[in-house]
Amino acid sequence: MTLKLISMGLTFQNNELKILDQRLLPHSEQWIVVKNPSHMVELIQGLAVRGAPLIGVAAALELARFSFTTDDSELVHQAAHQLRNARPTAVNLMWAIDRMLHEAPNLEPESLLRVAQAIFEEDVLMCDQIANHGADLIQDGDHILTICNTGGLATAGIGTAFGIIRRAFEQKKHIHVYACETRPLLQGGRLTAWELQKLGIPHTLICDSMAAMLMKLGKIQKCFVGSDRIAVNGDFANKIGTYSLAVLSHHHSIPFYVAAPTSTIDSTCLHGNLIPIEERNPDEVRGVRTSSGSISWAPENCPVFNPSFDVTPAHLVTGVILNSGKI
Amino acid sequence: MTLKLISMGLTFQNNELKILDQRLLPHSEQWIVVKNPSHMVELIQGLAVRGAPLIGVAAALELARFSFTTDDSELVHQAAHQLRNARPTAVNLMWAIDRMLHEAPNLEPESLLRVAQAIFEEDVLMCDQIANHGADLIQDGDHILTICNTGGLATAGIGTAFGIIRRAFEQKKHIHVYACETRPLLQGGRLTAWELQKLGIPHTLICDSMAAMLMKLGKIQKCFVGSDRIAVNGDFANKIGTYSLAVLSHHHSIPFYVAAPTSTIDSTCLHGNLIPIEERNPDEVRGVRTSSGSISWAPENCPVFNPSFDVTPAHLVTGVILNSGKI
Repeated sequence: MTLKLISMGLTFQNNELKILDQRLLPHSEQWIVVKNPSHMVELIQGLAVRGAPLIGVAAALELARFSFTTDDSELVHQAAHQLRNARPTAVNLMWAIDRMLHEAPNLEPESLLRVAQAIFEEDVLMCDQIANHGADLIQDGDHILTICNTGGLATAGIGTAFGIIRRAFEQKKHIHVYACETRPLLQGGRLTAWELQKLGIPHTLICDSMAAMLMKLGKIQKCFVGSDRIAVNGDFANKIGTYSLAVLSHHHSIPFYVAAPTSTIDSTCLHGNLIPIEERNPDEVRGVRTSSGSISWAPENCPVFNPSFDVTPAHLVTGVILNSGKI
Repeated sequence: MTLKLISMGLTFQNNELKILDQRLLPHSEQWIVVKNPSHMVELIQGLAVRGAPLIGVAAALELARFSFTTDDSELVHQAAHQLRNARPTAVNLMWAIDRMLHEAPNLEPESLLRVAQAIFEEDVLMCDQIANHGADLIQDGDHILTICNTGGLATAGIGTAFGIIRRAFEQKKHIHVYACETRPLLQGGRLTAWELQKLGIPHTLICDSMAAMLMKLGKIQKCFVGSDRIAVNGDFANKIGTYSLAVLSHHHSIPFYVAAPTSTIDSTCLHGNLIPIEERNPDEVRGVRTSSGSISWAPENCPVFNPSFDVTPAHLVTGVILNSGKI
């Protein structure tokens, strides 16, 4: 195993798989050596590693790594099952493990590693393709608004919406990024702000409610957001707060782009109203829980609405940027 | 002094002035007996008492109370000066103390108390008038969105925008209030949620970014917000996040109302662009600081935009509700 794979949130080299502990970001950058598949399941469930594509890549690599340490293929099979079920809603995770078992049915270590490597590299390539398609849309001097984290901490590559921004920066365009903090879980304030700082991209962190004022002041030229699911008619679901930005962009005549892998298009979903809206733990809105500590500021048992995402209708979207091209 | 004045955040009875410590809300309801004018200054500066009208009322009452404890009018004069400067930007505070000195120039205790009582009672009356004018606009069954805290914790009466909602509830209309948490300082999540619970008004707390989705789902019939300053052309400044709600209301054809005392109209300010935009401490956006604790989740020194309010243009406003009537 001389294979070496490096991404922002994961490394595989010298037969060792390491995960950047995202729970501790941005205050501490600690890498965890993954000990075994059970350990990886813990890391996934505890959100040390997050971002749908990255979880799939991490699980696949751990399965391959583990297969070199045992002669008992039954143990490898059990590990695959265990990893596949680490997060029941993570479609990418199941897809990655299923592909491992399908393309390396004999669980032969070298084969498993080859498939895991392909999953990693295809994710990197997909991000690059999205980035290249999207970066053309960014002009020198643009100020760009984004929400949540869609960067190198969510994928094996440079990310989706964030990857586009990063590519434009790499192209030496003078850009400035406004990152919405993304209540309630603050992926923007914690992770995107960290990535922007790490990459040296000029940026400003704002509360979600401040985006409208920036638009009115003429400080935003474009919005780029990711997507969890795109319906056939172009409606799409993404992190809660995305729809608000789409309406505000429309009102201020600011182009609003969605970036995602082609696999995000759900051909069984005809329009956005058919996308189920998952509600999360009310305590997330009653306060915050981060690695630095937890605070609840609302009255105990205060009734809360906490949808994890919202749906933006296609007519508010200027363009969709996929790895296969722009729509 | 047999005078008895009771409001949600302040009581004056048996020669004793007490302040509800708003720093500890909603988790603990602790009343502080005000010891002397210096103590009141501390309470104002430490935000134990907040809300522009309530600060003015509290300072006036403490000046009157103090005047009964000394024969030295020079001390009373010094106390007035000290109270007046407790928060340099609080126009109501200066206005209240100036009125005390103007209407009771001899600093005679009974006169000072009479003026303080008038200031208190006029604030109560003003809130009632706003509430009565506005409550007509609320229909049985309405779901109402609001932001920040504009209720009994901000005034001596039932509040401005919040007072309207409360009056409609008192009129037995079946209403439901969606309270925006109001990042960064969380006056909605902490104080409005507490008032709603205290009064038994059905309510739901949301993150600011969730308002748009609620509107799209048809769950909001009306918005009511307060104002810090209204320009002559009808543009108005209010807590950051208000402009966002105005645009979203407009997009969803939801009536959007502003409620404020007539004194909020600044006749020297012709339009909204002339209202200066104050920026606050970036640490407010990098994390939270509440009585329950402080957390910073963003990268250290992360660049931040933290305007304390935004300006909403008049064309997005359905109506302005003043104590003197509706516009």
